[in-house]
Amino acid sequence: MAKRIIGSTPKQDGYRMPAEYEKQAGVWMLWPERPDNWRQGAKPAQEAFANVARAILPFERVTVGVSPAQYQNARAKLPPEVRVVELQSDDAWVRDCGPTFLINDHGGLRAVDWTFNAWGGLYDGLYFPWAYDDQIAQKICEIEGVDSYRTEGFVLEGGSIHVDGEGTVMTTEMCLLSPGRNPDMNQEEIEKMLLDYLGCEKVIWLKDGIDPDETNGHIDDVACFVRPGEVACIWTEDKENPFYEAAQAAYRTLSEATDAKGRRLKVHKLCLTKKPCLLEGAETIDYAEGSIPRKNGEVSIASYMNFLIVNGAVILPQYGDENDALAREQVQAMFPDRKVVGVMTREVAFGGGNIHCITQQVPDPEGGR
Amino acid sequence: MAKRIIGSTPKQDGYRMPAEYEKQAGVWMLWPERPDNWRQGAKPAQEAFANVARAILPFERVTVGVSPAQYQNARAKLPPEVRVVELQSDDAWVRDCGPTFLINDHGGLRAVDWTFNAWGGLYDGLYFPWAYDDQIAQKICEIEGVDSYRTEGFVLEGGSIHVDGEGTVMTTEMCLLSPGRNPDMNQEEIEKMLLDYLGCEKVIWLKDGIDPDETNGHIDDVACFVRPGEVACIWTEDKENPFYEAAQAAYRTLSEATDAKGRRLKVHKLCLTKKPCLLEGAETIDYAEGSIPRKNGEVSIASYMNFLIVNGAVILPQYGDENDALAREQVQAMFPDRKVVGVMTREVAFGGGNIHCITQQVPDPEGGR
Repeated sequence: MAKRIIGSTPKQDGYRMPAEYEKQAGVWMLWPERPDNWRQGAKPAQEAFANVARAILPFERVTVGVSPAQYQNARAKLPPEVRVVELQSDDAWVRDCGPTFLINDHGGLRAVDWTFNAWGGLYDGLYFPWAYDDQIAQKICEIEGVDSYRTEGFVLEGGSIHVDGEGTVMTTEMCLLSPGRNPDMNQEEIEKMLLDYLGCEKVIWLKDGIDPDETNGHIDDVACFVRPGEVACIWTEDKENPFYEAAQAAYRTLSEATDAKGRRLKVHKLCLTKKPCLLEGAETIDYAEGSIPRKNGEVSIASYMNFLIVNGAVILPQYGDENDALAREQVQAMFPDRKVVGVMTREVAFGGGNIHCITQQVPDPEGGR
Repeated sequence: MAKRIIGSTPKQDGYRMPAEYEKQAGVWMLWPERPDNWRQGAKPAQEAFANVARAILPFERVTVGVSPAQYQNARAKLPPEVRVVELQSDDAWVRDCGPTFLINDHGGLRAVDWTFNAWGGLYDGLYFPWAYDDQIAQKICEIEGVDSYRTEGFVLEGGSIHVDGEGTVMTTEMCLLSPGRNPDMNQEEIEKMLLDYLGCEKVIWLKDGIDPDETNGHIDDVACFVRPGEVACIWTEDKENPFYEAAQAAYRTLSEATDAKGRRLKVHKLCLTKKPCLLEGAETIDYAEGSIPRKNGEVSIASYMNFLIVNGAVILPQYGDENDALAREQVQAMFPDRKVVGVMTREVAFGGGNIHCITQQVPDPEGGR
């Protein structure tokens, strides 16, 4: 039912990735489980994920994929309105291992099934094996009944790109040029893949992200499109902030950039947390040979930028930080027509990401008409 | 999305199980895998299952559920038109562990999620554990978006019942009164459950099935409804046939029975195989502690009755037996308006069932209007 498309590209076939602010049909998530990444047997993380699902539900259909072992527990802990389907994964980051959905102007819905290698494969990936994660996109496409382009060998995570829906894609060199992704391709070749598979005309390259060790600097912690011609960018004037340099550099690059339509971008500033989000409870994370040892007090990547736009709302991470309210205000000012819904997701940050990382939107195929 | 219905019954809510010959929307199957049931690592069985899916495809949508471990292989071996979804099971008999779908007169589609205990639980069940099998119905309902009645504690397999869609259900005492099913209920109480959950008015009880050791005598190897007022029943005049007595008794019972509408049933005879279907290759079946040892030459239950009715066709087991052609003729005579499609499924019989056992139809909810 869901076919693999071989021998053409989305651009050739008239498909493009819509912006997150375009009309959506639903959101996919995965259920966190592995005790060597999530503290306390992933129980606090499961509660946080359920709260994110709950926050999205008033606006859109939510489907959560869960391993056979955790199926009954997830079904019991999630609201009845959530669709729960079995999906074995290696962890819970559907933004990165899931499909990137595409639409055309005639109500068509397709997807790109990028190759996934756990953020760097054997070079600097975060775990091995990642075979189940790499099957997630295909399995979601089968359930959704959506044909997909499989980029055999081309590695990309959904969190490393943002598009404006009008021909522009934004990404970071730190991630896409990392030796753990596509070391045999140069920047020009990688750029061509992005343009061909996202149906875009121009790439805006930022240099660095804020988490070199985990995702190698995903864009979705740093900046995003707010609407055509406008972006949000993390911002701090506090030189002690561990992300000060990266934020300043990203802001400068975006302020000087033009998009595919030749527009100079308007850049909205979004604050960082006042205090770094420091890991607690590391002693309850299982030992696993080969993974980076986790220590109490290490900085978790807690960016307000890692929000999810849904129909009529923005689902925004909150960390119990002094700047939580400021972040809500700033995001509300960027999206005056949407409700800003804050969800406490410090626990998700402890695991290495946040709301944008754990969600994947399905566009409404009629949105392209 | 798919809710659990508590506090009422299908009959109270105006739902009924439609007959298999009513309009269908699709068929579910599971992928065989366990090497302690299927010979040669289940590879010949997988080929046979794929052939059954292929035979159904011209008539209806087919979805195959498969474990995470076998997902890629199943996806590669099945035709691209088959929808393949992840579903961890304990074996591959979706007729017995899957949902029994129900319709009403207003386009509604629901299901019964019976408790499944591997054909007898700890009394005389065929394997332990069966926890994943018991979740199959719920998982299918979630994917189909269908609300279900969960019969907490009431054990039933879909292969132990047949309905005529007009108030009559047919079953066997050997199975439903077995101590491995619902030992705390008497026949009257069990009958009430059938009537309430299938939306029926009358139960026709046959005494025995033909496989006391495996399913405890499922009806779907013995008899089925062909249309309202007409049934098919296995038949042989060969006293050496191991199923001679059971066939004669079933035929007598059905010939004397009346249905819920008070009609005397017309009984069509369906032949048995000329020679018993004897297990080969038992030495390639994995050893598993506690399961019945398998021996070359033991009789496999190979009934032509175990066919599946789909829209416009009947998918009929073939065994490489002298009577294969006769069975095709007899089934064609019963269903003059349907195409009879034979599929070689000796391999499925080696595993303990056949086409009806490995399929579960989803009715077309508009069929009830």
